[in-house]
Amino acid sequence: MKVLGVIVEYNPFHNGHLYHLSLAKEIVEPEYTIAVMSGNFCQRGEPAVIDKFARTEIALRMGVDVVLELPTVFATQDAGGFAFGAVSLLDATGVVTDVVFGSESNDIDFLWQVAKILFEQPEEYRVSLHEELKKGHSFPNARKFALMKYFSFKGWNERNILRLEKSNDILGVEYLHSALRIGSPIRFHTIKRVGAEEKDVSFKGRFSSATAIRNLLREKRWNEARESLPEASYEVLMREFKEGRGPVFLEHIGDFMLAFFRLKDREYFEKIHGFSEGLEKRFQVCSRRTGSYRDFLECVKTKRFTFSRIRRLCLFSVLEMSKKFVEKSNVRGPQYLRVLGFTEKGREILAVMRKKAKLPIVTNMSLYRKILKRTELPVDKNLFIEQLQLDVKSTNFYSMFFPSKEQRCGERDFAIHPVFLRAET
Amino acid sequence: MKVLGVIVEYNPFHNGHLYHLSLAKEIVEPEYTIAVMSGNFCQRGEPAVIDKFARTEIALRMGVDVVLELPTVFATQDAGGFAFGAVSLLDATGVVTDVVFGSESNDIDFLWQVAKILFEQPEEYRVSLHEELKKGHSFPNARKFALMKYFSFKGWNERNILRLEKSNDILGVEYLHSALRIGSPIRFHTIKRVGAEEKDVSFKGRFSSATAIRNLLREKRWNEARESLPEASYEVLMREFKEGRGPVFLEHIGDFMLAFFRLKDREYFEKIHGFSEGLEKRFQVCSRRTGSYRDFLECVKTKRFTFSRIRRLCLFSVLEMSKKFVEKSNVRGPQYLRVLGFTEKGREILAVMRKKAKLPIVTNMSLYRKILKRTELPVDKNLFIEQLQLDVKSTNFYSMFFPSKEQRCGERDFAIHPVFLRAET
Repeated sequence: MKVLGVIVEYNPFHNGHLYHLSLAKEIVEPEYTIAVMSGNFCQRGEPAVIDKFARTEIALRMGVDVVLELPTVFATQDAGGFAFGAVSLLDATGVVTDVVFGSESNDIDFLWQVAKILFEQPEEYRVSLHEELKKGHSFPNARKFALMKYFSFKGWNERNILRLEKSNDILGVEYLHSALRIGSPIRFHTIKRVGAEEKDVSFKGRFSSATAIRNLLREKRWNEARESLPEASYEVLMREFKEGRGPVFLEHIGDFMLAFFRLKDREYFEKIHGFSEGLEKRFQVCSRRTGSYRDFLECVKTKRFTFSRIRRLCLFSVLEMSKKFVEKSNVRGPQYLRVLGFTEKGREILAVMRKKAKLPIVTNMSLYRKILKRTELPVDKNLFIEQLQLDVKSTNFYSMFFPSKEQRCGERDFAIHPVFLRAET
Repeated sequence: MKVLGVIVEYNPFHNGHLYHLSLAKEIVEPEYTIAVMSGNFCQRGEPAVIDKFARTEIALRMGVDVVLELPTVFATQDAGGFAFGAVSLLDATGVVTDVVFGSESNDIDFLWQVAKILFEQPEEYRVSLHEELKKGHSFPNARKFALMKYFSFKGWNERNILRLEKSNDILGVEYLHSALRIGSPIRFHTIKRVGAEEKDVSFKGRFSSATAIRNLLREKRWNEARESLPEASYEVLMREFKEGRGPVFLEHIGDFMLAFFRLKDREYFEKIHGFSEGLEKRFQVCSRRTGSYRDFLECVKTKRFTFSRIRRLCLFSVLEMSKKFVEKSNVRGPQYLRVLGFTEKGREILAVMRKKAKLPIVTNMSLYRKILKRTELPVDKNLFIEQLQLDVKSTNFYSMFFPSKEQRCGERDFAIHPVFLRAET
């Protein structure tokens, strides 16, 4: 039996995602498709434009059979942490056989070559990386230069590494690297990414990037956004907006964050994951010096830190994600498989997962303590609770930024059942 | 030499305050007048409508010579903590000889009688208080009933105690109680409060309450508000609003608070001053259950807890005022005299204070560590820093809620010099 796994944010689900999903199914010809999806906060430290339950509904309507939530602790990390969480989760299902991911280079051999260097960490590479970091480069850049040196040292074409500028390839390498780390038997395939790049914010018609689409939504240009969205996605988005559960944008949360930072001192930030090299001081000083979130980001920014990293740090700070907790998660991986939704067909593969999964499956959140108590799987129970409570906290926090106050009542993780999509008859 | 002390919030300064100030001067005939004023947050857990520097300017223009800031840890507490901080501060000036406060009963002998019971805590009173609290009454009510019993036990007119329903009399008793506690030689006088009661929210023309005036300001009914305000007060208010530094109302901060609470668990609230009797659980549950600050307050409310108390607890929570810190402050009192502003005449009495004060005087905030290092006065240095940093934190937090983003730059405590009012020539 073949089961396809995909790793997604669907923020929001657009034509490019649909194309990717169809092509992946063509390549793998799976009986079932399982998606690992970010919850309410995404990898660039931004909130999702609509919440995870609505995005799950769209994914199911577009042909995914089961949607699992990537725990917040992974969904909000950089490429390395994100990939490790996602691949670990797919591996833990016990049923996923193939993963397909988008790639600019579409050269899986090259990506494996790089992943192996990251995994094996040969001496020459480690030394160069250290040197490049010392020069003050951001981690992604330092790594790129160190890899170039290593390629040149090996007599390989060092210019190849320049292809690693693209975000999907970078993520792809991390997926493969994670698979090596956990020794996963999953087969990986790439498909050429079509249409606009994620970074490309301009409107490109049928294949605009998620960023471009979010910009259109921000400006209420519904009809233009619609061109880039499958009908089901458009429908659900409009329904959510109408009911006051979106769109949620970073700028809505930005002022909260700045006020929050003003209540905290350097010692607070020091405990948070990702703070080092004087960032705690920059956060303290800049939060007092600036009056808007945008100015705050500009104030903190230096050559060494990307905006994405700073936005992630902001999120880590308000969610109080400690170094200890994140580091432990990055060693031990996710501790549960949280089912956000499934189709009638998906129910079948969930039944198989109940026998084969390496982690407990949480479908009904109100039973999570019982599930944890009864499981015979090797779970770190404290970490299970910490990770799950962070997901709950994220949801409660996120829903405070719904446009409608009536929709802001919290505990949606307990109030809302997994999305179930009946087969059309 | 006679120096008058007054204890104020001036939120905002209105005709009733002016009347009080004039009458107090008539009674005492002081050479100088010193006001202890709340900073950016007031005793009912609400933000001041304009910030402390603007309110200081008004006070100086209206005839106060020196304005001292009541440290946040006292300004935001209930009547007991507020009064203890304020009277301790006036006593610590070393120069204040007389304090005049507004009183509904205007019966200083009666207020002293009650204050002595609170101070001496006779057995009979203590037992009744305990019983009344056990019945589930709020503390103010329990105390009222216990005092009634004690009066009746003594053969005094127990109905007198019913007069203690009024907020100024309650505060007055606490002033006298605090004076007994610290053995202050200050003389106390009352004056009959005129015009509307603070609780009276309806517009009463020349003598509306501060609450009624804030309501008018909320609705932008400037001309009606103007009727109740001295010209200088109106002028400064309008200037501040025009520049985007107000008005600040609790509802602007309410959503922040609710989102903040959702990020915290019961253990967080347990450490905060004032949380007991299951309030930490109520805060946790209600912050998840409700979608607006107003609904949150209603959800937490029970017979036992007044709205004022709940609002104060909200503020304690976001400012992270721990039990340990507040309790220590309530034993040791304020640790500095922070000068918010002074007139040319006020400079003379400040010069005397520099010799007579029992606490270090902080005029230039950027020198506070030097001042602390050099002082020979018996100061708890850790507490000094903790109290002052809370004031700074409150200001930084408060300014995030200015209507204009340009005005939100923080560290106003360091950026703004004490207000200095030159004598008119």
